[in-house]
Amino acid sequence: MNLHAIYHRPNQNYAYSYDLETIHVRLRTAKNDIEQVTVRFGDPYHWMAGGGGGNLNAEGAQGWISHEIKMKKEASTDLFDFWFAEVKPEFRRMRYAFILESEEQRILFGEKKIVPLTDDDDLNYPYLNEIGNFFCFPFLNPADIFNAPEWVKSTIWYQIFPERFANGNPALNPDHTVEWGSVDPKHDTFYGGDLEGVIQNLDHLQELGVNGIYFCPIFKSPSTHKYDTTDYFEIDPQFGDKATFRRLVKEAHQRGMKIMLDAVFNHCGWEFPQWQDVLKYGEQSTYKNWFHIRKFPLIENDFDPLTQPGGLNYDAFAFAQNMPKLNTENPEVIDYFLEVGRYWIREFDIDGWRLDVSNEVDHTFWRLFRNAVREVKKDVYILGEVWHDSQPWLNGDQFDAVMNYPLGDAILNYVAQNKTNSSQFVVAINKVLTDYAKNVNEAAFNLLDSHDTQRLLTVCGGNKKKALLAYTLLMTQAGTPCIYYGSEIGLDGGADPLCRKCMIWDKDSQDREMFDYLKQLIHLRKTYKALSSSELEWIQASDTGSYLIFKKQLNDEIIYVILNNNNKSQLINLSSLPEGVYTELLTNTEVNTKGTLPVKPYTAWILKKI
Amino acid sequence: MNLHAIYHRPNQNYAYSYDLETIHVRLRTAKNDIEQVTVRFGDPYHWMAGGGGGNLNAEGAQGWISHEIKMKKEASTDLFDFWFAEVKPEFRRMRYAFILESEEQRILFGEKKIVPLTDDDDLNYPYLNEIGNFFCFPFLNPADIFNAPEWVKSTIWYQIFPERFANGNPALNPDHTVEWGSVDPKHDTFYGGDLEGVIQNLDHLQELGVNGIYFCPIFKSPSTHKYDTTDYFEIDPQFGDKATFRRLVKEAHQRGMKIMLDAVFNHCGWEFPQWQDVLKYGEQSTYKNWFHIRKFPLIENDFDPLTQPGGLNYDAFAFAQNMPKLNTENPEVIDYFLEVGRYWIREFDIDGWRLDVSNEVDHTFWRLFRNAVREVKKDVYILGEVWHDSQPWLNGDQFDAVMNYPLGDAILNYVAQNKTNSSQFVVAINKVLTDYAKNVNEAAFNLLDSHDTQRLLTVCGGNKKKALLAYTLLMTQAGTPCIYYGSEIGLDGGADPLCRKCMIWDKDSQDREMFDYLKQLIHLRKTYKALSSSELEWIQASDTGSYLIFKKQLNDEIIYVILNNNNKSQLINLSSLPEGVYTELLTNTEVNTKGTLPVKPYTAWILKKI
Repeated sequence: MNLHAIYHRPNQNYAYSYDLETIHVRLRTAKNDIEQVTVRFGDPYHWMAGGGGGNLNAEGAQGWISHEIKMKKEASTDLFDFWFAEVKPEFRRMRYAFILESEEQRILFGEKKIVPLTDDDDLNYPYLNEIGNFFCFPFLNPADIFNAPEWVKSTIWYQIFPERFANGNPALNPDHTVEWGSVDPKHDTFYGGDLEGVIQNLDHLQELGVNGIYFCPIFKSPSTHKYDTTDYFEIDPQFGDKATFRRLVKEAHQRGMKIMLDAVFNHCGWEFPQWQDVLKYGEQSTYKNWFHIRKFPLIENDFDPLTQPGGLNYDAFAFAQNMPKLNTENPEVIDYFLEVGRYWIREFDIDGWRLDVSNEVDHTFWRLFRNAVREVKKDVYILGEVWHDSQPWLNGDQFDAVMNYPLGDAILNYVAQNKTNSSQFVVAINKVLTDYAKNVNEAAFNLLDSHDTQRLLTVCGGNKKKALLAYTLLMTQAGTPCIYYGSEIGLDGGADPLCRKCMIWDKDSQDREMFDYLKQLIHLRKTYKALSSSELEWIQASDTGSYLIFKKQLNDEIIYVILNNNNKSQLINLSSLPEGVYTELLTNTEVNTKGTLPVKPYTAWILKKI
Repeated sequence: MNLHAIYHRPNQNYAYSYDLETIHVRLRTAKNDIEQVTVRFGDPYHWMAGGGGGNLNAEGAQGWISHEIKMKKEASTDLFDFWFAEVKPEFRRMRYAFILESEEQRILFGEKKIVPLTDDDDLNYPYLNEIGNFFCFPFLNPADIFNAPEWVKSTIWYQIFPERFANGNPALNPDHTVEWGSVDPKHDTFYGGDLEGVIQNLDHLQELGVNGIYFCPIFKSPSTHKYDTTDYFEIDPQFGDKATFRRLVKEAHQRGMKIMLDAVFNHCGWEFPQWQDVLKYGEQSTYKNWFHIRKFPLIENDFDPLTQPGGLNYDAFAFAQNMPKLNTENPEVIDYFLEVGRYWIREFDIDGWRLDVSNEVDHTFWRLFRNAVREVKKDVYILGEVWHDSQPWLNGDQFDAVMNYPLGDAILNYVAQNKTNSSQFVVAINKVLTDYAKNVNEAAFNLLDSHDTQRLLTVCGGNKKKALLAYTLLMTQAGTPCIYYGSEIGLDGGADPLCRKCMIWDKDSQDREMFDYLKQLIHLRKTYKALSSSELEWIQASDTGSYLIFKKQLNDEIIYVILNNNNKSQLINLSSLPEGVYTELLTNTEVNTKGTLPVKPYTAWILKKI
């Protein structure tokens, strides 16, 4: 037995409360090393009369009332197997340990030591009841449950980069606005997109099935992207005014769509008045401590780019001179930005905040932020921008989700770029899923592209079928998927600034086939809740054939996805599916599992048992 | 190379901020598997001109400015080695990965994948700079640093069980008080200990060198232990009044001693007025939601002890009818207990709170508690009662320390009970140390006995020399040691209630030899800061000889402890120490390392190089 591989720690993704009565427990072991894992658990204070009487330390304590649940092999990665169990301890407390069995050995894995078990139950008795060596889940307190808003789990997001979505009110066009879509964007090309344009095109979103809009920043700022905020309490005049935004929110809400805004609290823009005050008054500025200033002057004239990039004597986002980092530990700054968070909810009824560069802001601030905005709207959604391991933000006290680039990358590597084969794809997805709690995965913000990446179609090398297959994977995973404006009608574009091209509104120039397929996928996702469930089982992953079969389940609803990630049509054998007649949901045709399925290149079948 | 054994996750005890400029990084590998580990790190945005320009995703990005630090093998357990490095990234941000070398292999261990490295630097170049695969420490924000109060690191605690420490005012004796120390205590035996008694005996503590008193509960309650609080805003009349307590705090402070009180917020006592209200008015009680009531009546007459222990229809501590669990998620309850926390600091200037059964209270409450009490006194100490893995409370947002029973158990198993040999002891200590951040260990609350355990001398089977040796180990570890009242003068006692015997004040009946030795140890600990440093190196751990040599260091101060955990005298060879002349600090004698040291049974030598 590979003892080095066994891992469990009673927190984070390994032991957590799932709902008011359920605790999830995970264990990691070496791949294919263990045949069976059982979790042994009981209430620390629940003993037979005359037993330990709840005294964990009583020597010779006998008669601990305990239970055993066989764990399920949940997922495997390249090196590891993950075991999973759902435990519902009657009194919401438990001590627990794992019993691992391989062909040659049986052990108890506890918090303090590993104990080899024998075949003799009497000899094992002390170890099986020595709860001082058991892990502890002290109490299932509701306040500590990770609880993303319920509504988000059935939300289809649509990300809008406001300058480039639609120009609904040309009167607001900034100086030097160029004709819509007339040229490829540079960093400073303005086209005049605005909020009125969004209002006018809500039908488009509704037709697609979108029920949540995530806006890149709309607050006052000189740039096209507006991540360098001048005024957090004002809408940029190029986008419209507050009345327009209020109307937008109302119209969206009437259509059942949620609104999420982008908050840049890591740094402000150059023209932020408090920063301007520091520029003007230097050491004497009352706002000096709103930032992280190392010394004055703020910027060196002659500087060594290697040791002092940008010549900055203050912390900034990256080394961007125009984006000074905010000191979110200063009580004045905290008050100010918590009020920003509350203001747009209270006054405009927005439903979510996406937090830019959220990983560089202190956790303390985010905890305060969560409390502050939830006091105004209990089910507000908080989405952080974190590209790497995000566990520190996803323990229930800070964010509801992060931008799940790792999941998107797994799909792109497999489908769009053929960098990975089917089994590597499975491993990549399994890594994402086992890295977090199930309730975290169920609210994950899944995306294939954004204003910060190349567009899906471009990553697919222009191969539309690949893009559609990538969307099929996106729409059949747990979490909450997001479509980047325009990608649904075949807009392409490389890295920033090219991924921020103008939306195409001429229907003849839109790829309506893509739109219709995606619309259908969204409809299926909404109709069949199994598709968005976190119950995922890999049935087959063929590397030679480059195809994949997986199962999604929610209660009695079972759906199989058969996916041909191959540039050739192939006959896929369905013998691994339970026998019977199925409906293919995309085409609404009947399929019998006795036989093979002819699946075209980069195409998926979605089968539901009749 | 054992890839299964390698573990790192960028949080908790594996990556954390140590101080304003230092990040600590740890890596776990299989024991004796790896020869060298290097951490490769750099600022994510710091690139040579013409390089990636801070765009982590730019393909072919070149010229990342990075650095490498060789990691130190910090400690080994039975299965694992732990590697450690201190990193001071110039701009307080970093991406980092590990380069591991064994005899046969060299790999890069990143967040997303493991990459085998070749001897060809050009071939390795892409992997060594692919920072998307590097772990991320996004920003060293001061607010997130674990920051126990500075004063606690040089504190020697003394735990007082007030009913049994000293009777200074017999007029306050409760009914049925028996004569001091006349009989062994039962759970309900009262002896009349009080606060006046503590004041009268501060000299005793001061002589010993104590500079912090931790009081078991002193608030109004009917029991001897007072963990079933009736009134959190009143001192139990058996112990005295508020004026007396105020005097006690002042006198203690004048002697440089801190005062810590015990707060029982997990549950209240039967006579707590809000609980009495529920008992009286049932469903109609306005305090119904202050508790976790499943249904009325609160207690069943006929109940099945197996399925319904205690017959309780409400949550309680264990199944103790008289200790109903408080609903610390109810805003009224939160307000009430935060005010308790603030009140005793604000009005009486106490310095710390020890939190009873803190593991069963929600984390959300403890975060609010930390903020609330720190607003009144910035350097208040918060100590939680957690017996098991305590990481979830020790991330800087909740507690400064927990009661470090695992460290105490390691010492008792080795010295007091001979359950483990020297190398097992080393492993046990190393487990405790590597389970947590260094700044957590430096504030750990270390103890060998308490009101909840057998007394040290009893665990030692009455062998005083063993008890002294256990104290020697306690006093030479990082953290903040605590002495349980009476154990310093040889008070013994088995499990509760016997571990709560009356303090012996007759000097002739006190073991003054123990007292003097412990007093000397404390003096040495205060004089030589290396003893309390977290720089610990095991020099030798002999299982056959049952002796141990370890090194403690703080800057230039280096101390070696040579410890004979053997019932025979033995000559211990000092060849593993740097050559030279040392002072033995306990005896103030000169020792030369050329030769052997004759160490008596269960005795230690503490050597400092001259």
